[in-house]
Amino acid sequence: MSENLRVAVIGAGRMGMDHILRLHHRTARAEVAAVVDIDPTRARAAIAGIPGASAVTDAGEALGSADVDAVLIATPGFLHEDILHQALARDIPILCEKPLTPDPASAWKVVQAEEKLGRRRIQVGFMRRYDAEYAALAGIVRSRELGDLLMLHHQHRNAATPAGFTNEMLINDSVVHEFDAVRFFTGEEITAVQVRIGKSTGNSPVGQRDPQQVLMETESGVLADVEIYVNARFGYQVSAQAAFEDGIVSIGADTGPLVRTDGRWGGRVAPGFEQRFSAAYDAEVQAWVDASLAGTAEGPSAWDGYATAACCAAGVEAQRTGQRVPVALNGKPALYLS
Amino acid sequence: MSENLRVAVIGAGRMGMDHILRLHHRTARAEVAAVVDIDPTRARAAIAGIPGASAVTDAGEALGSADVDAVLIATPGFLHEDILHQALARDIPILCEKPLTPDPASAWKVVQAEEKLGRRRIQVGFMRRYDAEYAALAGIVRSRELGDLLMLHHQHRNAATPAGFTNEMLINDSVVHEFDAVRFFTGEEITAVQVRIGKSTGNSPVGQRDPQQVLMETESGVLADVEIYVNARFGYQVSAQAAFEDGIVSIGADTGPLVRTDGRWGGRVAPGFEQRFSAAYDAEVQAWVDASLAGTAEGPSAWDGYATAACCAAGVEAQRTGQRVPVALNGKPALYLS
Amino acid sequence: MSENLRVAVIGAGRMGMDHILRLHHRTARAEVAAVVDIDPTRARAAIAGIPGASAVTDAGEALGSADVDAVLIATPGFLHEDILHQALARDIPILCEKPLTPDPASAWKVVQAEEKLGRRRIQVGFMRRYDAEYAALAGIVRSRELGDLLMLHHQHRNAATPAGFTNEMLINDSVVHEFDAVRFFTGEEITAVQVRIGKSTGNSPVGQRDPQQVLMETESGVLADVEIYVNARFGYQVSAQAAFEDGIVSIGADTGPLVRTDGRWGGRVAPGFEQRFSAAYDAEVQAWVDASLAGTAEGPSAWDGYATAACCAAGVEAQRTGQRVPVALNGKPALYLS
Amino acid sequence: MSENLRVAVIGAGRMGMDHILRLHHRTARAEVAAVVDIDPTRARAAIAGIPGASAVTDAGEALGSADVDAVLIATPGFLHEDILHQALARDIPILCEKPLTPDPASAWKVVQAEEKLGRRRIQVGFMRRYDAEYAALAGIVRSRELGDLLMLHHQHRNAATPAGFTNEMLINDSVVHEFDAVRFFTGEEITAVQVRIGKSTGNSPVGQRDPQQVLMETESGVLADVEIYVNARFGYQVSAQAAFEDGIVSIGADTGPLVRTDGRWGGRVAPGFEQRFSAAYDAEVQAWVDASLAGTAEGPSAWDGYATAACCAAGVEAQRTGQRVPVALNGKPALYLS
Repeated sequence: MSENLRVAVIGAGRMGMDHILRLHHRTARAEVAAVVDIDPTRARAAIAGIPGASAVTDAGEALGSADVDAVLIATPGFLHEDILHQALARDIPILCEKPLTPDPASAWKVVQAEEKLGRRRIQVGFMRRYDAEYAALAGIVRSRELGDLLMLHHQHRNAATPAGFTNEMLINDSVVHEFDAVRFFTGEEITAVQVRIGKSTGNSPVGQRDPQQVLMETESGVLADVEIYVNARFGYQVSAQAAFEDGIVSIGADTGPLVRTDGRWGGRVAPGFEQRFSAAYDAEVQAWVDASLAGTAEGPSAWDGYATAACCAAGVEAQRTGQRVPVALNGKPALYLS
Repeated sequence: MSENLRVAVIGAGRMGMDHILRLHHRTARAEVAAVVDIDPTRARAAIAGIPGASAVTDAGEALGSADVDAVLIATPGFLHEDILHQALARDIPILCEKPLTPDPASAWKVVQAEEKLGRRRIQVGFMRRYDAEYAALAGIVRSRELGDLLMLHHQHRNAATPAGFTNEMLINDSVVHEFDAVRFFTGEEITAVQVRIGKSTGNSPVGQRDPQQVLMETESGVLADVEIYVNARFGYQVSAQAAFEDGIVSIGADTGPLVRTDGRWGGRVAPGFEQRFSAAYDAEVQAWVDASLAGTAEGPSAWDGYATAACCAAGVEAQRTGQRVPVALNGKPALYLS
Repeated sequence: MSENLRVAVIGAGRMGMDHILRLHHRTARAEVAAVVDIDPTRARAAIAGIPGASAVTDAGEALGSADVDAVLIATPGFLHEDILHQALARDIPILCEKPLTPDPASAWKVVQAEEKLGRRRIQVGFMRRYDAEYAALAGIVRSRELGDLLMLHHQHRNAATPAGFTNEMLINDSVVHEFDAVRFFTGEEITAVQVRIGKSTGNSPVGQRDPQQVLMETESGVLADVEIYVNARFGYQVSAQAAFEDGIVSIGADTGPLVRTDGRWGGRVAPGFEQRFSAAYDAEVQAWVDASLAGTAEGPSAWDGYATAACCAAGVEAQRTGQRVPVALNGKPALYLS
Repeated sequence: MSENLRVAVIGAGRMGMDHILRLHHRTARAEVAAVVDIDPTRARAAIAGIPGASAVTDAGEALGSADVDAVLIATPGFLHEDILHQALARDIPILCEKPLTPDPASAWKVVQAEEKLGRRRIQVGFMRRYDAEYAALAGIVRSRELGDLLMLHHQHRNAATPAGFTNEMLINDSVVHEFDAVRFFTGEEITAVQVRIGKSTGNSPVGQRDPQQVLMETESGVLADVEIYVNARFGYQVSAQAAFEDGIVSIGADTGPLVRTDGRWGGRVAPGFEQRFSAAYDAEVQAWVDASLAGTAEGPSAWDGYATAACCAAGVEAQRTGQRVPVALNGKPALYLS
């Protein structure tokens, strides 16, 4: 009898492959039992070198297998809803890459299905909560060692976006991380969103306005802002500063080695999120495996997936209108309290 | 015959005394010829140890003296207007502490008086332009080495405010520096201001909401924001980050010595603006003395004083209404072009 | 059939327990098959919560078990020799905590035994090679992107030492890491050692002189120095600076979050090596497991264990005499070339 | 009557011109009364734009003038001795660029002449004592807030040296600053010097071995080391780290603005000592002017000039022999006690 959590990975694209390698090479007590991809060649390639793993093209087949204990969903977001309902019906642990689903209505159905099941089975892939500095800042808020948190500033910068990356995707694919981060830091819901658009870089795709500034408010009145700048060229950077009653906390500083050469001092900027958050992804998946083997669920919940979907919907409307848009949320089910 | 610029300092309070000591002890080719203060005891105390300086209680007397070549105005702002007009009538170099005058209407009269005189005589005390890092950032904008400037973020934090420091003073006394800084960095006027007020610290005086976030837009659409937080307790901090098309520039980092002790690494935060901007004040006054001896005027002009007064007026209205408020400006006189 | 590497851990003390938890909770494709400790209570406690693991008091019993694929040695150093020879006789993968053995003569016997076996089976626990910044610095040397490496400076500081931590232990237990690091960075052997002892802290145990400065030379003449300071009180710090022909590289800077409070800016110093090098230990053990499953051996070899033992012997003599002491090494067996 | 200190500057080369501009443009209550240079064209060029200054070719003429209150010596070091004796005979304030004189014997004669005069008139140009971070570190030592100082590490790196810069000049022209710094930080004399020479850069002039490591000991046993690396190419860097009983202090970190561009984060390295120590030079000269006008003398004394000359002599011998060389000093005259 294997003591390991046998995981079916749905989707063998960029994120899926990353998770397959992580589960096989860097995660304790987990093994890749099956890889599902609509492209059978890609599915087969993904299991090369992984003894005992099967490659299938149908998610239902993997979810129905007795050799599968848990499922990691890494398909494009619009495909999540159906798989989530199947996996909930099977009552197995689920790690679902963000977004839970692309809109608040479908996300709410997932929440209701899990609530009906009566126990948490879903963890959503907001991996920043597993970054050591993000966790440390959240810990400082919880401890109240610096008094109340009052204001948050975020920077989210990417080197470049592919053609077809729209204004809406700036909110739905990028700022969604900060929506979750603000909720994580404050422990509160976001109540309203505003988007400011000013001078744009000449380096963005046609039709995209970049950078933008997204402004948020939380239930207790904490103000947060995000500079989302997805064609910043220099590299990838995610950082945040928090103003407390008794001090200021900054996370996301550049790291070493520090080099002096050619009249300059400094170091290398992380080229992308894989490098910047590699340890956070590892910690996220290990935490999910550990909780799953223990029969529990922790980390970002389906409610977090639903609430951030509602923030995104408000954000896209705010982006379009230039107005401050309230965030509409249903009541929080008891399953997600505390 | 003395080659030095003989300066009358008007006002021997905190800023006045600071400038008197600077002129006497750290400024080349300048000397304190007279100190004017309504309190004769304070005026006399201010010239102790300065050979040849006189102490008077009437600004007119000092401005009328043949031994005075230039005037430095360091009284409270509401007293500036009358002295400025007297000094312009005398046609001598003027270094006027900020604000030029407390409101756009009176500032505009000063602009008109200088324009009528036909040459620049007034330098306004926006000393941050003389800070090495502020100047370096402005230089990067001018050089376009990182492409166009797109967005600016500012933090302006003080340890505490005295009782009676009102919400309006957050704009008029504190954010006025960032209004000038944004104009300095961009070389553009500010076109609109918005103020966000959220959760407040428990450490502010009654009636004051602290921190606040001030949002600005410039002519070309550069977006700027300021966290103004005047009871931040930990110390004094002024910093800024600029997003360009080809990179990000940050100024105002904490400085050394770096100490490791008691489980901590780090250093001391500057307790106040005198320590943080000491070198900038020295450079400002030296530049004014140098230009005055050369018969020219440089640095922040009466127009800059007028334009920031208009920003402050818009900022206070934005603070009161929560709305985005356009900044109203008269046409720029030819004297201040280029 | 289990695909995992089944590891017997010898020694359930501080380092042993750390490795047991790492193998079980954070290492992919490994499992703890047996824990050996002379104290049966400690051995049993160590396997609590690890299904299938056995607790024994005799290393031979574990090494003889068909359920054991590999061995991790974490006993005190003077017990390593015998277990190493048993494990080599069994021809299984070995991860041996540093030191390989406590002296060059016994280390050389281990080298000879492995050479006779004809293939590398031993990896020595110099885990700094798996620290991201150490690896990056080594990469810069190998790439020659900054020209030749010329000089190395190291700081190795601990908060405190237990009573009975002798002058010799400063060399054998602490500086041994820098002996390996200098060999790792340069790819050369150390040819001579000198030790300078000056003013001592009042915080060291009786009889111990702290701090000390250890000076080294390598085959090509690279000069290295180490400040070893084991009662530095403020916390734990390991850092290094390398002077190249075309630049300087520094590693081991303090990390975030960066906090401003109480008139200070900065962060927390790592209290000990477990926190500072946690990721390096994880990477070391994962690399050993991966190589073992692939039937190969990588990382620090028995030769590295032998050569550092020779450096330590020279270091202790240098410490005693104040003289520059050459390092005596036997010829390098072919097994360890390349 | 002028209240200013009227200074004769001897030598209008690189350092002399730098001081002339400083005295005229950035120093309060000082004026350049005369410039002496053996080249009359250079002397005349140096006083261009300075009203009232005279240009002469003979130091004696300037020193004999009733219009000269003080003298700043900026000729090459081998010319200092004669001018120093003339200026002491005249009994006027002297600021003498380092070295006081090139060797201990002639420096001792200057000490004796000043002692005979009966009051301090000489300040030696060890300007690092006026750098804010150097002064802060010295203050931490004096305050004993971190307990006793135990060990010092220094880095002194230049981009390049001119042809003809010999091994001896590494000690006499460069490390002389660290000899003074170690004496300044500890308040003790240096008792012995050792020099280590290893692998050399390919970028140094023929015959020069670069980098070198200079080791020192002080009276109480503080150990200090210096990496002197004068063809380091990347730029100019002077930094130091101090190990205390209760902490570590680092000075000389790189400063902002911090720029992220092209996959890098960091800033610009100071190209040379003029940029790095500009404020220190200004503070040094202002302090000398202030003390001279007050009829006192402070800062580095003739004794400091003599003692560092003795360190240099020992350092050059240590460099030649590879041995530890004691520093020979005469007894300290009463004039320099306290």
